[in-house]
Amino acid sequence: MAETMFNKVALIGLGLIGSSLAHVMRREGLAGEIAGHARSSETRAKAVEIGLVDSIHATAAEAVLNADLVIVCVPVGVCGAVAADIGPHLKPGAIVTDAGSVKATVIAAMAPHMPDGVHFIGGHPIAGTEQSGPEAGFASLFEGRWCVLTPGPGTDPAACDRLEAFWRACGSSVERMDAEHHDLVLAITSHVPHLIAYNIVGTAADLEEVTKSEVIKYSAAGFRDFTRIAASDPVMWRDVFLNNREAVLEMLGRFTEDLTALQRAVRRGDGEGLQELFTRTRAIRRGIIDAGQDEAVPDFGRRGEIVPPE
Amino acid sequence: MAETMFNKVALIGLGLIGSSLAHVMRREGLAGEIAGHARSSETRAKAVEIGLVDSIHATAAEAVLNADLVIVCVPVGVCGAVAADIGPHLKPGAIVTDAGSVKATVIAAMAPHMPDGVHFIGGHPIAGTEQSGPEAGFASLFEGRWCVLTPGPGTDPAACDRLEAFWRACGSSVERMDAEHHDLVLAITSHVPHLIAYNIVGTAADLEEVTKSEVIKYSAAGFRDFTRIAASDPVMWRDVFLNNREAVLEMLGRFTEDLTALQRAVRRGDGEGLQELFTRTRAIRRGIIDAGQDEAVPDFGRRGEIVPPE
Repeated sequence: MAETMFNKVALIGLGLIGSSLAHVMRREGLAGEIAGHARSSETRAKAVEIGLVDSIHATAAEAVLNADLVIVCVPVGVCGAVAADIGPHLKPGAIVTDAGSVKATVIAAMAPHMPDGVHFIGGHPIAGTEQSGPEAGFASLFEGRWCVLTPGPGTDPAACDRLEAFWRACGSSVERMDAEHHDLVLAITSHVPHLIAYNIVGTAADLEEVTKSEVIKYSAAGFRDFTRIAASDPVMWRDVFLNNREAVLEMLGRFTEDLTALQRAVRRGDGEGLQELFTRTRAIRRGIIDAGQDEAVPDFGRRGEIVPPE
Repeated sequence: MAETMFNKVALIGLGLIGSSLAHVMRREGLAGEIAGHARSSETRAKAVEIGLVDSIHATAAEAVLNADLVIVCVPVGVCGAVAADIGPHLKPGAIVTDAGSVKATVIAAMAPHMPDGVHFIGGHPIAGTEQSGPEAGFASLFEGRWCVLTPGPGTDPAACDRLEAFWRACGSSVERMDAEHHDLVLAITSHVPHLIAYNIVGTAADLEEVTKSEVIKYSAAGFRDFTRIAASDPVMWRDVFLNNREAVLEMLGRFTEDLTALQRAVRRGDGEGLQELFTRTRAIRRGIIDAGQDEAVPDFGRRGEIVPPE
């Protein structure tokens, strides 16, 4: 167990990230006290029921009182509003961070509300599942995953080091990065993959020649992997696309350009070109497994029958 | 253990499907004898080493001698050549089937080589992993999965029933379908998903602004799911696209049409439209889980750290 790093930590938002942070902070003893806020009364009630936090608060302003570390874990579209709410109530010297998948617009929305003497540093733990809500969290979510911090030129180095130590104590590796570069990296490793997963699932659902029941029955042929990603939280992802528009459009443009070339290869029967691409992409998979970012087990460990179909 | 269904079964091709069939036939005692053929001498040697088959043959023609059931499990592009090889050597009354992911062109390539008195019925077990080769197979691959049979108007009903019973004994559910309809269904549930997975992995690999090492490090944000699919056998998939060209181009056309609309929604900041799609696609995931075609466990069961990153 690590030593207590912060006397009081406030979690603003108790979804997958907030609840996972609560679990890992408790397991590692990182916080003297955990205060939580969630907008919905159902989430607050559930958090109390499962003992997620030491105190639950109906407003974010109340939750952050006297907190040494404030972690804002809400959809990126409301980060600015949360910052406006909590700004006047933050303890001098407190560290404020977030967990959003977009950094430049979030920082632009939050930073102006941060009072002098408070250390605001954007953050993004690259971890998640398709589940959401206060019961979705688990202590090992961040283990072996990367957390990106995006300090600015005025960031206090000591505060940034403390925040980095916190994420390391949660099991993450930490990398510091420019906010704009983060947004470009995540556009290709996360945002565009989600967009095309949502898109193919939508395309399949709308077909007339192939019924929805056929799509479901024969999904084991590849499609089902996409549906997992396309089952991710709709509001969180809506906000990601609204807030990382330029980088997403840039990467999407490259994707469709490449796809057009691939479509042409299919139409022309260019077997050599297809095989060359299909061989090249295997290497990336190997790189991900070698880097410990996915398991080597085939088919994500699925081994035949799951639930007997009717 | 089911009763022996065929005195002798010949497996032409000993990759993932062929080797899985060997395992499940042994476990269930479905075949009196299993003869195997693989084109490469390495695969034949490995098959002997791991005891996959009762006899191994350097030619397909030799393997099918006296076989009651012949299952051709090779890339769809060589099915026609295999049919030409084995045609003159098939036992009268034998059932010949295949396991290819495309049916219309495979049937057109194979059927002309089938002698009178031999029952040729196209087949496709909707099951697989990203692994290939004789060591990739396992007995439960087909359990709870669907196998599609595509009998034609002249198919002997008794032979089709026997083949269906065989696949059921392997653990599959069986559906009969028109070959053209099969190809359309698989284009959307399998072929286009593979094409876009290969494509996004290729796009990511080619970026200049984002390094390959960054793509790998931050892949847990969604991208890594695509890399699994994009690690599938290059030759098998090349042949699929060359042989199901029309249906793939048709479904790909719909996908890109929808993606263009989605791109426009992102550009215009149409949050409502994005959220509506992202909510709708969740239902398909639920349908797949309810149908036993995937596990409900979040993130395919990944629970944090896999291998410590350096």
